[in-house]
Order: sequence, then C-alpha cells, then structure tokens
Amino acid sequence: MKAVVMRDKQLRVDTLDAPMPAAGEVLVKTLACGICGSDLHMFHHCEHVLSNFRRGGIPVDFDVNQDVVFGHEFCAEILDHGPGCDKTHKVGTRVCSMPFIFNQAGFEHVGYSSLYPGGYGEQMALSEALLVPVPGDLPAHLAALTEPMSVAVHAVNRAALAGNEVPIVVGCGPIGLAMIAVLKSRGIGPVVASDFSPKRRALAERMGADVVVNPAEQSPYQSWIDVAAPAGYDIKGPMAVFGIGPQPKPCVVFECVGIAGMIQQVLQNAPPRSRLIVVGVCMESDRIEPLIGIAKEMNVSFAYGYNGEEFAQTLFALADGELDASPLITASVPLEGVADAFTALGKPDEHAKVMITYT
Amino acid sequence: MKAVVMRDKQLRVDTLDAPMPAAGEVLVKTLACGICGSDLHMFHHCEHVLSNFRRGGIPVDFDVNQDVVFGHEFCAEILDHGPGCDKTHKVGTRVCSMPFIFNQAGFEHVGYSSLYPGGYGEQMALSEALLVPVPGDLPAHLAALTEPMSVAVHAVNRAALAGNEVPIVVGCGPIGLAMIAVLKSRGIGPVVASDFSPKRRALAERMGADVVVNPAEQSPYQSWIDVAAPAGYDIKGPMAVFGIGPQPKPCVVFECVGIAGMIQQVLQNAPPRSRLIVVGVCMESDRIEPLIGIAKEMNVSFAYGYNGEEFAQTLFALADGELDASPLITASVPLEGVADAFTALGKPDEHAKVMITYT
Repeated sequence: MKAVVMRDKQLRVDTLDAPMPAAGEVLVKTLACGICGSDLHMFHHCEHVLSNFRRGGIPVDFDVNQDVVFGHEFCAEILDHGPGCDKTHKVGTRVCSMPFIFNQAGFEHVGYSSLYPGGYGEQMALSEALLVPVPGDLPAHLAALTEPMSVAVHAVNRAALAGNEVPIVVGCGPIGLAMIAVLKSRGIGPVVASDFSPKRRALAERMGADVVVNPAEQSPYQSWIDVAAPAGYDIKGPMAVFGIGPQPKPCVVFECVGIAGMIQQVLQNAPPRSRLIVVGVCMESDRIEPLIGIAKEMNVSFAYGYNGEEFAQTLFALADGELDASPLITASVPLEGVADAFTALGKPDEHAKVMITYT
Repeated sequence: MKAVVMRDKQLRVDTLDAPMPAAGEVLVKTLACGICGSDLHMFHHCEHVLSNFRRGGIPVDFDVNQDVVFGHEFCAEILDHGPGCDKTHKVGTRVCSMPFIFNQAGFEHVGYSSLYPGGYGEQMALSEALLVPVPGDLPAHLAALTEPMSVAVHAVNRAALAGNEVPIVVGCGPIGLAMIAVLKSRGIGPVVASDFSPKRRALAERMGADVVVNPAEQSPYQSWIDVAAPAGYDIKGPMAVFGIGPQPKPCVVFECVGIAGMIQQVLQNAPPRSRLIVVGVCMESDRIEPLIGIAKEMNVSFAYGYNGEEFAQTLFALADGELDASPLITASVPLEGVADAFTALGKPDEHAKVMITYT
C-alpha cells in the first residue's frame, strides 16, 4: 500500500506491506484522514514529545528508528475481517474508530505506533470492537472530523456546564474551533473567542462564535465583561473579589493554545471564581502564581481525550447535522501533498484542518 | 489598653488608646485570640507578603510604618455600642466575628490594619452586623477557633464531596488538623494524613485521622491505595490511566502546606482523576507540569477564606460538640508571652495553635 512514512526524520511517500489484521481486527481502506497539530509536533520534536509522554504517563510510545505512519483522525471502509471477528459490520461498511488497539501486547495508538499504521496510509488494521459505522451519507472527510470534535465534546462534558455560563475560547486552532461548535450546539453562550490570527478569527465566526477578538487589540476578558457582567463590574474590584452585589454569569475559559504561560494568563485575567478547562497540551514545564488562584478561588480542570461513548455520539451529531464541523477543513490533499501541508500548517494563518483524501 | 504591637519590625507590649467604635460598630473586650501562621508570616516578611497580596488581588493592606495589632481569630465580649447600632446583642454578650470591617472607606481586615487593632489587644472595634453570639457555655478559647476551623469548613464545602471520597490531608499544621476534624465530622473517610513532624502526626491522630504517615518513610499515596483501591491497583498502570476495570474510590487531596512545589507533587503522585483542593497559601511563584495534569485529568480547586454562613455554622458546630477542635490548642499565653510564642511556633514540632488568653 502507499503511505506517507516518517523515516529518518523525513516524511516520504513509499510503498509498504499492507497491514495484516490480527485476531479481532479488521483490514480497512482509508477514505479520509485529518492532519493533526500533534502530528506536526511529533514530526518536529519526536523524541522530546515521546520523552514528555513517558514522564507524563501518557501511554503513547514507539521506536523512533522504525517507520511510523501517522494519522489518527480517519474514516475508512471495511475490506476484510481478520481471524476471530464477529463480523458485526460487513465488508464495504464505512466506519470511524477511536485510534486505539487494546490487545494482549497492551495498548497501541493507531498512527503513533511502529505496529499499527495510521490514516496517512491507504490501509489500516483496526480493532473490530471499536468500530462505529458512519450513519447515512455523511461524507468521509466530515466523518474523519469525529476524532478532533470528540476532544471538544469531552472537554465540554468535563466542564459539566449548568447552562448559564458565558465561555471564553482562548485560541482558535482546530480544537478551539471545535470547542466553539460544540458549545453552540449545546446552546451555551454567547461564546467569546480569541485568536491573534485573522484567518482563525474568521473561522471562529463561521463556527458560530458570538464575539471574536484579537487579543493584541482587545482583552477577551473585557469582551466577556461586556456580554456577561452587570454594568460597572470590575474584575479586580472588591465587589468582584468578595462576590458582593450583582454578579456576572459564570465564566468558563477553554484554554486551547497549549503553550507555557497560558494557565497563569487565565488565572491573572479571568474574573474571580472562574473555571479554566485546560485543553491545549503544553509539553513544557510551566509557571503559575498560586496566590492569584487562591485569591480568586479559581478552578482548573485538565481535559484529555474522550471515551467511546463521546466518540460515537460525536459521529452521530456530525451525521444528523447537530454539529457542523465543515468550516474546519481549509484544504484537501493527496498523500503526495502531505509534506507540503506540514509546512503550510506551520503558519497559523493559512489553514485550520487539512484533510488527506483518497481516490 | 494593653496590646502586642508590631512596630519597627518588633513585637512589643505597649499601652495604646482603646479603639473608638464608629457608626455601626461595637467596642469589645478580647477574651481569647489565636496566633495564626499568617501572623508569623506577616511579621517576618511583612512587606513581601503585602506586595504579594497586592499583586494577587487580596484586599489586605496597611501602612507598615504605623502600629499594627495582629489577631483575627478571636472571641470577645461586648463592652459598648457605638453610634447608630441596632443593639441586637446586649453588653456582656460573648461574640465571634469574621475579622472584617466593611465601611464607607472600603474594606479593612481586623488584625491586619492600621485602623482596626486585632485580638492581640485587650479591646477591639467590630462591625455589629458581623457579630455571632457564642452559644451556651462554649469556652472563649474554643470559640476563638471558629476562624481557622471556618477555613477548613469552607475548603471541604468547596470540594463538594459526594460522600464516597477517601481524602488525603497533606500537612498537619493548624489548618490541616482542622481539615481532618471537619472531614471526620462529615463522615468522610478513612482520612489519610501526612506530616514530617511526629508531634503533628500525633495531633492528626487525636483529631481523628484514620491513617497517619510520615512522608519521609511512606508515601501517603501508597497509604491511600491501601485503604481506597482494589487489590493490584497501580497509579501509573494503564488500567488506572484509562479508568478500565475495578477503580478506586475518588481521591481528594487537601494541600495544607502552602510552599512551592506542593501542587506539582500532588499532580505527580496522586491517582488519575484526583481532585486537589489547594488550601495552603503559597506566596511564591510555582512550577507545574501541565502535561501530567492533562494525562491524569486532574482537577485543581483553590480555596480561600469562608463566608458568613460558614463562619456561623462553624461556631455552632463547635458549640454543640459536632466539631471538637480542642486538641489544636497546645499552649496558652498572656500578651507578655506572644513574642516568645512566635519564636516557638517557628519550629513545627513544638506547637499547633497557641492561644492568647486574657484574665
């Protein structure tokens, strides 16, 4: 099969053996696969990322000296059933799957594995038990958005919103944009979104953000006050600190940037008693001022991944139109265009999600 | 009146003018007042603490060049009513009060103010509206524990426990000890408590902790596993990370040390999906590894202070025996003994709470 392979720190298109489905696995043909920011990060800083994962206890690991085929945001079609399959879904069924394999050898992350090539290859072996059939005629490139959208669904679920919150989405990369769509689909809002990039701000509007700001020009927290707080509310004033008098709606900040300094920036600038959901994955050591968190009684939830139910529900929400993720896709490329797409995605003002499509 | 005054960075006993109650204020005679760790911190690092408070938005401030009389954990007796009082409580009534004054000039913290001397003086002016009468015959030195116990009550309320949690109290100074008592009074447990000091560990046992460990010899997280997790549970294993298979009871860590590094220590060592309630007030910049928090989906709540309802309910709980805070008090001193008590309290193995008593 043809695949984009990471080998010797390069991405190259090569022909590999097709994967052999093991017991309980199916062989699938990839129909569409998104390029994830984590793939870029893994490509540029592979050993650093893997060592961080080991230190952080994230069970994603592979041998950097062997070929790796990225791609964990995919839609595929069943070609064949491996041994011992229930054949619940017949050959030709279009499916999505969480990019995981649980087997006797332990856990493998499809797309970050020396054993399980991901969606940057024409074929994959997937666990039959994790397959979710794509409902109706949802196009494959939209179904492939299930994985990144699930991250946002999980983060919103983790926030356990009461419904009266006014959220701030900090950073409008693919995950921030997904967050906006999920919040709007749940009727939460107005949604304030913030990004330095004009292209991403335009996408934030298309995803449904009600107030979109360039933080170089306007504090998103001031924009939040404008839509969520009573007249005269002062974040640093004693009425805000003590919670006396008319209070604003609850503030929930979704941090979708994932670089050092962001957590402290939210602690510093958000109103007292805000909740921060950390969705961006900061790989570096970070600095906070606990005193600020204490004085304002902030709450910080770290969110990561999704579960099987969230994954399936996200696919269903995409299929029935409850969630419209289509603006996320800013380009489609064949396998031969992946290396160039990695370069283009390095500049935040060019693209959100680039989708690999197969003919 | 006689008072311990902080002047020229020294504590000295001096005679001051008695405070004059302003409109809506009462004059009280101090019956008992606890020495708080914050008083020691303020004494030794006054300008540093105040500048941190300003930076953190904690509205506690005073002129370091003027006399300050510490003391915000007090029980007192009404001597006189100032102008415009409702006289809800008659002269002779024993009262506690949150150590705050809200007036036209803004906010003052009794005991950290150039205008409002605290309980290190024989008399105080307090806001009539904040007085809570001491029920029954609760001794004044126990009623004076209302303030520190309220901090623990608030932290437990903030944790919004479901009831099935197994908590870990890290640090058994006065606040950690108070936390143990409040958790036990709510039927939460077993309570695991951890402190390097043998004296404090003995007090933790007296306060009702079920498992008390010296972290130099035994990880409190291992002790937690012993009482809260199914056989074979491994904090860093994939079953724990993914939450697959038999799971432990929910872990809630109350951090009551308040020095840099503690938050990261909990993120690193507590089981996945733990909740951390930060009660200790760390004044320094601190370092965390967000990736660890993300990988384990931790939640961090900062807790600070208490509200009027929590303060009153704490006093009632002390009075009706629901809360027994008496083991906290390891010594009583007159005003003349305060300076020496400050020295003694610098060594964690000597005392928990030293109470100033008046004859």
